[in-house]
Amino acid sequence: MKYCSQCGTPVSSKIPEGDNLPRFICDNCHTIHYQNPKIVTGCLPEWENKILLCKRAIEPRYGLWTLPAGFMENHETLTQAAERETWEEACAKVDNLQLYTVISLPYISQVYIMFRARLIDLNFAPGSESLDVKLFHPENIPWDELAFPVIRRTLTHYCEDLATRQFPLHISDILHRPSETQGK
Amino acid sequence: MKYCSQCGTPVSSKIPEGDNLPRFICDNCHTIHYQNPKIVTGCLPEWENKILLCKRAIEPRYGLWTLPAGFMENHETLTQAAERETWEEACAKVDNLQLYTVISLPYISQVYIMFRARLIDLNFAPGSESLDVKLFHPENIPWDELAFPVIRRTLTHYCEDLATRQFPLHISDILHRPSETQGK
Repeated sequence: MKYCSQCGTPVSSKIPEGDNLPRFICDNCHTIHYQNPKIVTGCLPEWENKILLCKRAIEPRYGLWTLPAGFMENHETLTQAAERETWEEACAKVDNLQLYTVISLPYISQVYIMFRARLIDLNFAPGSESLDVKLFHPENIPWDELAFPVIRRTLTHYCEDLATRQFPLHISDILHRPSETQGK
Repeated sequence: MKYCSQCGTPVSSKIPEGDNLPRFICDNCHTIHYQNPKIVTGCLPEWENKILLCKRAIEPRYGLWTLPAGFMENHETLTQAAERETWEEACAKVDNLQLYTVISLPYISQVYIMFRARLIDLNFAPGSESLDVKLFHPENIPWDELAFPVIRRTLTHYCEDLATRQFPLHISDILHRPSETQGK
């Protein structure tokens, strides 16, 4: 951030009075511009003993598989956002959403909030951000072609929980970029 | 938003290509400025059969009681944020955080994520944003002096769940400002 979004004057990074973190503050109108983490939400759609994955048609991770998910928008609820993303990316309708994984990614200031959900019917198709949408039996999940660590973790929990058919909430953190940890 | 935070030029509200919502887009450098919901997180600290509440020293809702909670910051995890807010508002240390309520407030584009937590000791005190910090037996919760509907809902769940000592996750929405619904 270089300029105030309210008045167009350059901003400075300073700690406001009574605060303890530097914020971008306008040198002219003194507006404090807070920046906060974003929520990414989506679904793990289930159909009988299979789950729905999407092959990404956009960067990053073009051509790799993911669960339908994306940034929550202003003025919607979490479940509305998860259902909308599932519709946009997989043209799929889901219901019975159950909160399943909550994963903080502090290195990119995102929190993933993923729901298990029931796929309502087999009328799914690639949305504009997907190359392909397919049902996978858990044994056939393309582990070497998954787009993001947070998707890998959610699917790993799911496959483990299938043994007992209990799907408790899993809350955890991914603290580093994959390349940083893979390099060590 | 009136000006681009990257180059200081006025922005226009337009739907970007491939998108379906209007965004603020810079007329000069074409940066798209997305705006997304914020996460408010905090704790319901438990000590034996009591819980810790804070009396607000700031607006809005000066002088009313709340649970320690506030905006999650960039580069922290959810539990770090909830522990930090508990420390800042109540000078209280907690552990054993258990996700308890997830409440979407679309009318102000916030998601509250509240944890039950164990108060580690009785060394608590008002932080700079609190007038007072006190332990309350559930029977003595000041229901007529609570700061926010989301706090009332979290405490209501808690009091109901005390009957069975089971504290499942509660996920829900508050769709309107309290004044809008009270007026009806």
